[in-house]
Amino acid sequence: MAQQKIIAVVGLGLIGGSLAAGLRGFEDYKIVGVVRRQETADYALSHGVVDEVTLDPMSVLPQADVVWLCMNPQGIVDYMAKYAHVFQPGALVTDVGGIKTAIMEGAKVLPPEVDFIGCHPMAGTEFSGIEHSFPTMFQRAHFILTPRQESTQSHIALLRRCGAYLGCSDIVMTTPERHDDIIAYTSQLMHIMAVAVCDDEDLFQCRGFEGGSFRDCTRVAALDVPLWTQLFSMNAPALSRVIQRLEDNLHAYRLAVEAGDAAALSDKLTYSADRKRQMNLPGPGQVML
Amino acid sequence: MAQQKIIAVVGLGLIGGSLAAGLRGFEDYKIVGVVRRQETADYALSHGVVDEVTLDPMSVLPQADVVWLCMNPQGIVDYMAKYAHVFQPGALVTDVGGIKTAIMEGAKVLPPEVDFIGCHPMAGTEFSGIEHSFPTMFQRAHFILTPRQESTQSHIALLRRCGAYLGCSDIVMTTPERHDDIIAYTSQLMHIMAVAVCDDEDLFQCRGFEGGSFRDCTRVAALDVPLWTQLFSMNAPALSRVIQRLEDNLHAYRLAVEAGDAAALSDKLTYSADRKRQMNLPGPGQVML
Repeated sequence: MAQQKIIAVVGLGLIGGSLAAGLRGFEDYKIVGVVRRQETADYALSHGVVDEVTLDPMSVLPQADVVWLCMNPQGIVDYMAKYAHVFQPGALVTDVGGIKTAIMEGAKVLPPEVDFIGCHPMAGTEFSGIEHSFPTMFQRAHFILTPRQESTQSHIALLRRCGAYLGCSDIVMTTPERHDDIIAYTSQLMHIMAVAVCDDEDLFQCRGFEGGSFRDCTRVAALDVPLWTQLFSMNAPALSRVIQRLEDNLHAYRLAVEAGDAAALSDKLTYSADRKRQMNLPGPGQVML
Repeated sequence: MAQQKIIAVVGLGLIGGSLAAGLRGFEDYKIVGVVRRQETADYALSHGVVDEVTLDPMSVLPQADVVWLCMNPQGIVDYMAKYAHVFQPGALVTDVGGIKTAIMEGAKVLPPEVDFIGCHPMAGTEFSGIEHSFPTMFQRAHFILTPRQESTQSHIALLRRCGAYLGCSDIVMTTPERHDDIIAYTSQLMHIMAVAVCDDEDLFQCRGFEGGSFRDCTRVAALDVPLWTQLFSMNAPALSRVIQRLEDNLHAYRLAVEAGDAAALSDKLTYSADRKRQMNLPGPGQVML
């Protein structure tokens, strides 16, 4: 293993496991998992999630060319603080966090010779843990990067190649602030909606009456609570704004339904449906059964 | 064709086309489509959607053992009024409408020798038209029946066998009132949510930042406006109530996010996520890509 380059994937849960497995075979890099539990290590090796795995960060971090942090946002921030001076000079540290401002802020603890680029591969499922990971998770997903001003072009190019190798649909470069603003709408609000729908008093009476739209809209409600508590808390102002806007838009629809004016309701639905058609999202998120 | 029994499927759009194609080969019934446009007739025959097709209702309705009305709710009501005395005595008239109270009310126009049983096979897509129909649409869907008090057991049994033949997951018997109350939540609210999300001012700025949850939750927003205008209008009081409840539940989440109390937010998310897990819906509405 002397000359082989190393990508250390720290945390082999749903996302880290999928990322590691998807990166295996990437160029001349060896994928080394860093985990806390022996069972995770055993699973990772026996299922081919990684090339190697260790429970000892010190055995790999000082030699790693890339360190990919795949924990909860607070875990990522804490890890950078703890190992700031263990990472190899010239190494790239990156992550998978669903919010970026707080993580980029946390990355300021790194010494100047360690590069940091925020990364958010936009995929996931409502499950958690390595046993639900799969190497094709990021196929057709957006691969979002938030580099720092001082990030090197070679590291940005390296991550671009990683995203392409994972099968991502595109590489999106943005700022952490813009990322968090938009993600509040496209991701966090969808999760708030799903849990809010499940709070309805009719939830348990509706068995036998749900179709695809109900299953799709509530799919993510069985969420990883510690993770999403962090994601929501770390982006509270932006999330609050989009919830408020959805409340307003729902209220407007309620008034239109209550008014009993079919022509006006039809106009309103035409407006919204046309907006959806204009979005023309590239490919469905799912295949109908 | 002298002795062969006939199921006339009136309206070969997304639902009628899928239903007809899914019913082909059912017992000793011939599936005859009744359509208004020659192009639909041509498509239906060339794609094997039906055994036979006609543009002339009078050529088949008087001989049909079953007449399955697959139009918009108002269209179903109007059709029953127009052909009330054309249906064969002893025939079963049924439908696919997403609301049942108004349709059952409309069915009162039928003479006593014509049986009517409301039917709602709970599947669909965000598209419309025969060219988007497919025979497996109703596999794993709920097949809901709202018989009248005077409906015959043999007709109920016949529809049960149709639902099984279509691959539905179960046959659900209920009243039109209960159907409409619950459907307001499980189906209509999901559509209102999807269009309300698309009304957000950030919609067109969010390209490159959407993941599976956004695609899933907004999938149905590109809806068939005339159809959904009718469905919403004909169920306005129940729909208004569930929109109000969602507004309230979203508002409660917004307050929890704004309060900045992570422990309280975590408790609230735990409560909702547990409710979702308790629902334990039988199989996903979609497969993740």
